[in-house]
This record gives sequence, C-alpha cells and structure tokens, in this order.
Amino acid sequence: VAAEPTHFTTSAAAALQRLRTRAPRVHCITNTVAQAFTANVLLAVGAIPSMTVAPEEVPDFTAMADALLINLGTLDPTRRSAALAAIEVAKEGGRPWVLDPVFADISRPRLAFARELVRHEPTVLRLNAAEFVALAGRDPTVQGVAACALETLSIVALTGPTDLVTDGLRHALIENGHPLMAKVTAMGCASSAVAASFLAVEHDRMAAIVAGLVVMGVAGERAAAAARGPGSFAVAMLDALAALSPEDVAGSARIR
Amino acid sequence: VAAEPTHFTTSAAAALQRLRTRAPRVHCITNTVAQAFTANVLLAVGAIPSMTVAPEEVPDFTAMADALLINLGTLDPTRRSAALAAIEVAKEGGRPWVLDPVFADISRPRLAFARELVRHEPTVLRLNAAEFVALAGRDPTVQGVAACALETLSIVALTGPTDLVTDGLRHALIENGHPLMAKVTAMGCASSAVAASFLAVEHDRMAAIVAGLVVMGVAGERAAAAARGPGSFAVAMLDALAALSPEDVAGSARIR
Amino acid sequence: VAAEPTHFTTSAAAALQRLRTRAPRVHCITNTVAQAFTANVLLAVGAIPSMTVAPEEVPDFTAMADALLINLGTLDPTRRSAALAAIEVAKEGGRPWVLDPVFADISRPRLAFARELVRHEPTVLRLNAAEFVALAGRDPTVQGVAACALETLSIVALTGPTDLVTDGLRHALIENGHPLMAKVTAMGCASSAVAASFLAVEHDRMAAIVAGLVVMGVAGERAAAAARGPGSFAVAMLDALAALSPEDVAGSARIR
Repeated sequence: VAAEPTHFTTSAAAALQRLRTRAPRVHCITNTVAQAFTANVLLAVGAIPSMTVAPEEVPDFTAMADALLINLGTLDPTRRSAALAAIEVAKEGGRPWVLDPVFADISRPRLAFARELVRHEPTVLRLNAAEFVALAGRDPTVQGVAACALETLSIVALTGPTDLVTDGLRHALIENGHPLMAKVTAMGCASSAVAASFLAVEHDRMAAIVAGLVVMGVAGERAAAAARGPGSFAVAMLDALAALSPEDVAGSARIR
Repeated sequence: VAAEPTHFTTSAAAALQRLRTRAPRVHCITNTVAQAFTANVLLAVGAIPSMTVAPEEVPDFTAMADALLINLGTLDPTRRSAALAAIEVAKEGGRPWVLDPVFADISRPRLAFARELVRHEPTVLRLNAAEFVALAGRDPTVQGVAACALETLSIVALTGPTDLVTDGLRHALIENGHPLMAKVTAMGCASSAVAASFLAVEHDRMAAIVAGLVVMGVAGERAAAAARGPGSFAVAMLDALAALSPEDVAGSARIR
Repeated sequence: VAAEPTHFTTSAAAALQRLRTRAPRVHCITNTVAQAFTANVLLAVGAIPSMTVAPEEVPDFTAMADALLINLGTLDPTRRSAALAAIEVAKEGGRPWVLDPVFADISRPRLAFARELVRHEPTVLRLNAAEFVALAGRDPTVQGVAACALETLSIVALTGPTDLVTDGLRHALIENGHPLMAKVTAMGCASSAVAASFLAVEHDRMAAIVAGLVVMGVAGERAAAAARGPGSFAVAMLDALAALSPEDVAGSARIR
C-alpha cells in the first residue's frame, strides 16, 4: 500500500529541524572519489562527517558515530576489512547503517561482497535500478523492490528520476530532484550519506530515508535554478542544502 | 610535416558529436588527488567514468570500458598492479589507452615504472616538457617528440602553453587554452582522461587526441572569461565542457 | 608575553610577496579527503603541491620539497610509513615540517602515532582545542599551550574562532577568519599546508605560521563576502587566496 504522503512530508521537515540541532556524527566507509563531496554534503546539511577506512581506526570512529555509511566504490581489501569492522561495531551499539552497493552490476567481486553485507541486514539499502537487478535478481518494480525489502529485512530505496522507498509493506514515491544530479560524480553516494544522517535523528526508518531523499531532491531543484551547468550545480547544491529550512521541505516535498 | 589543420578541426567537432551520442565508458587508474575532478570532467564532456584501482575489480571494469586511462600519480603498489592488469585487459580487447606519467621527472621509481609501461605501447602518451625530458631523454622539440613517437609507437601529446601532438610523421600544434588551467590541480590529468574518451569515438588516433585537447582548450578559454580566479575557473570549466557544442569547437579551434 | 603584532603583520605581507616569487614546493602526506582541496589551496596561494603517500616515492618528493606537511587523517599503514620516511628526509635536509593530528581525540591508534611523531620535534604543531587536550593532556589556555610548546620544542598553533600561536615564550592571537571556514571539509588541513608553504620562505618560524594563518583568515573573510553558502564559499576561498596581495594582508590582518 502507498504510505500516507502528508505524514512523510511533516516528518521530513521535523527531522531536518532535529538534524540541525543535534548535528549527528556519520562515519563513512566510502570510495576515494566520493569522500570530499560526501563530507561537504554532510557538513552542509548539518551533520559531522568522518571518513577513515584504516581498519585499526574504524572501531573508534564508528563507536563515536550516530550512523554509518558503507559504500562499495573503489572496493580494495582495506575497505572490505573496514566495512566488516564498522558493521560489527554499529550492530553492537544499535546504530543504523546504510549500504550503497555502487556499480555492483559491473564488478563481480563487488557484487559478491554486497551480497555478503546484505546478510548483515543493513537498515537501508540504497541503489539504482541496474544495481538492484544485479543484487536482487528481480525486476525494479514496486512489487520486486518490496519483495527484496521483505527478504533482506532492510528498507530499500531505489533511486532514479522517481525514488521508491519501501519496507515491503508500505511504499513512498519521491518526485523531487533534477537531471543535473546525475551529472555530478558522487551525488548518489552523498545521498546515501545524508540518508544515514537522518536515520540518526528519526526512529521511523522509512520516514528517515524519505526525509533524506526529499532534502536532497528539493536542494537539487533549488540548485538547478541557480546553475549554469554541472560545475556550478554541485556548488549550488551545497549552498542550497545549508540554506534549506524545514518550511522549505514542507512546502516543496513531492511525495506520493 | 605539419598536418592539415582544417581536417583536425572538422574531425574534432564530429568526434564531440559522436561522444555525446555514444557516452563511452572510460576506466581510469588515476591518482587520489585527481579522481573526483577527472570523473566530473568526463561526465561534463559526455562520457561515463569509473575509477576503482582495486586489482580484483579492475579486469571487470576495464572489460566494460571503451577506453582506459593510466595516470601514475600517487603510485602505490595497488596502482601498479591495477595498471598492469588493466593494460592487459585493454590490449586483449583492442581498447585504446592513454598513459599520463605525471611527475615522472621527480620520482625515480615512478620514472622506472613509466618506462616499463611505455614498452606496452600506449595508444597515447600525454605529458609535459619536464616529464618528456625525463622519460625520453630528448629535448622537447618537434623533432625530439616525433622521434619519441616513432620509437614508442605511441602518439605523443606534449602539453603546455602550446600543445604538440605527433605520430612521428605528422604533427599538429594546438593554441587553445588559458594560463588558469595550470592553477587547478588535476587539470592535466583530466585532459588525459578526456583524450581517452575521444579515442573511444574516433579511430584516427591522432585526430582523437587533438580533439580532446582542443575541447579542453576551448572550454578553458570560455571558463576563463567567466572566472574570478582558480576556484571559479574550475567550476566554470565543468559548465563550459557540458555546454560546448560541435559548432563551438569548429569556430574556436586554433590548430596549426 | 604577547608578541609585537605590527611586526607579524609586516612580516606576513613580506612573506606572501616572497612566496609568490619563489613558488616553494610543499610535499603533503595528507588524508584522501583533503588532498584535492589542499592542492588547490596551495596552487592558489602560489606554492607547488605534491601529494604521493607511496613509501617508495616519498623520499624523492620530500627531497625536492621546500617544506613538508604531515596530516594524520585516514591514517592507514601506508600513510604511517610515508610519514616516517618523509620526516627522516626532511630532518636530514633541514626542511621545516608541520604536524596536523586531525581527529587524534577520536582514534586511539592515531593519538598514539601523533605522540610518536611529536617526539620528532615538528617545526609546527597545528591542531584544534579537542585535539590539543587529547594530545597534550592540558587545558587549551595560553599558559597550557605555551607549556606544550616548551616541552615539544615546536611552535604550537591552536586554531579556532581566534587562533593562538606560541613558541612558549611569545604568543600571538589572530582574529581573522569566518565561521563558514568550519563548514568546508579540509579547510583546517589546508591551513596547515599553507603554514608549511610559509615556513619555506620565512626563517622566523613563529612569523611564518602567523603569516599562513592570517592569509587564510583574510582570504576567508573576503570569500565570505562573496559567498551564498559553504559551496560557493569554498570556491571563493580559492579565488580570494589567488587575488590576495601583500597590501591586502597588511591592511586586513588582525593580530594581537
């Protein structure tokens, strides 16, 4: 069943307000391409990022964090060890974590590792249609994604021109966003990090991921209005995220 | 002999048109400093970047790619293994590849590895004058560079205020560009990646590398007109690359 | 005793002039998040960055450099080896070096390594209050920081809304800067790199670090005036650094 959109809009605005007050720490095991932009996006939205992948450091950083991101880009042996160590600490501490299996459709070792991590039951699995098909072996329809959510016990967020978020029973469709978001490297990686930051301040996991994607989508729309191409768009995205108010979210969210 | 400049101008415009239509994949083994900017430059010009250097992932990504970039910055043991694995896959698949031996004039281990890779006959060797002198042991004159191209069986692109491209028999000089390009880190690394993307859509290897350098140079001129310094220049460069039309290339190329 | 502020203002302006003329090389062992922004900040201010952390390459790059930065972010085993190798070469060559123990308050292995490096007597130790407390075991007061400087034989630069620089006998307080500097990842890391670049052109170590922090602070104030948020601020920061004249420094420094 489609979830109540007004509920998610209201909770997204409230979650952004809490995020600004609490400034949650998000530890990111993410790829070297995405690290700097992801850190700047988290700072802009109001969270505090940390980024080390050194396995001996990851337990301390994860223990201090309110949420965890595991992104499988540039998946070297260090990142594999770091991901497993971080997930263990996050689960022990009851911390939410997001898995982003970027490009798992292209690299077979990465796909195998993504499947291993899914068995650890990520709070949220965020991916695009090609990654979903490779990982879940299903069509990227509402039914297929819902079935994946029920199997994995994760919220699944399938992002694209329209984002689909489902826990297997309810679903929400988010229409916010702009095509320029696909022309900036690491925009999807950064969205996963923002979703993690909202999990730190919103206990309803589905409402949290909807809030994160709506905030990114509304900021993307505002940034596009100020941009002259993908370079100025990425810059304007950071400005828009920092300037975004809960009222902006309430007024511009397009959830159905 | 100097090649026919009108031919290269026409083919550069046509190659940009094909690049936009085909959106070739370019796998980049490049340094950690350059990864994000290179990915954004490739997206802006119309290509699809991938960036992993994890040796176990590199074969799958290279097999899916239409062209390969090997940049020797931040040359750790992982990048050495990745480069060798990627070159093997690219050669097996008949894929073009570009070697960028950045700072090989400073690091002796890097210079030795660059010499080893040159023996694998890169499609294009792109470098600056100091790197050329260290690698080729010749003066960076038209004659010296042409001799290097004949010896290595590579197209050699010596970049600087004027870019020189030669296959040993023909040469082209490209006057496009702007001094601010030297004030942004990874601009040269990104130029090599763009050259690789053009090799994927233009079979005349010399025309392809000329097209890549002209596109970067014309975009640089347009970006400089909109910039207030190196920060806004880098942003405007991405905007200019995305906005550049084949007609812009035909009208602004300065090749002799 | 508080040092003579007029002296530091005059020497900062003169040091910027020399930096522009001499274009010193700064080798940076720094974290993957900070590498690109740090390189662009160094290029903007007028220095020449290099960034490899591959242990076999670090000796050649450090031997060619005029100053060295050791930043402990994303502290993997490669970075540990690279740091030790670089410090050895820098000390042999009498080159100044800056230690930035970023987030040493969070990661115990990083804190232990920071303590080991402090025993090698860095020319400058730059850190924030939380890192200082963890590393020095003292309160971040003028007296506490001065005691740390006397013990470590390093200039200590404690940065925050007001920056404190002391050699244990003299101290200077720098009021320049803007709150947006804390909203851009790697801004502190880049400040440490700029401090290293000034050590290459100013023999009075305390004057050098004051110059570096004043230049960053004045550029930050000018960038903020042109910014619409943290994204455009980071871009404007690079533009402001490149445009900053010695006269601007002399006119805008707020040192006491």
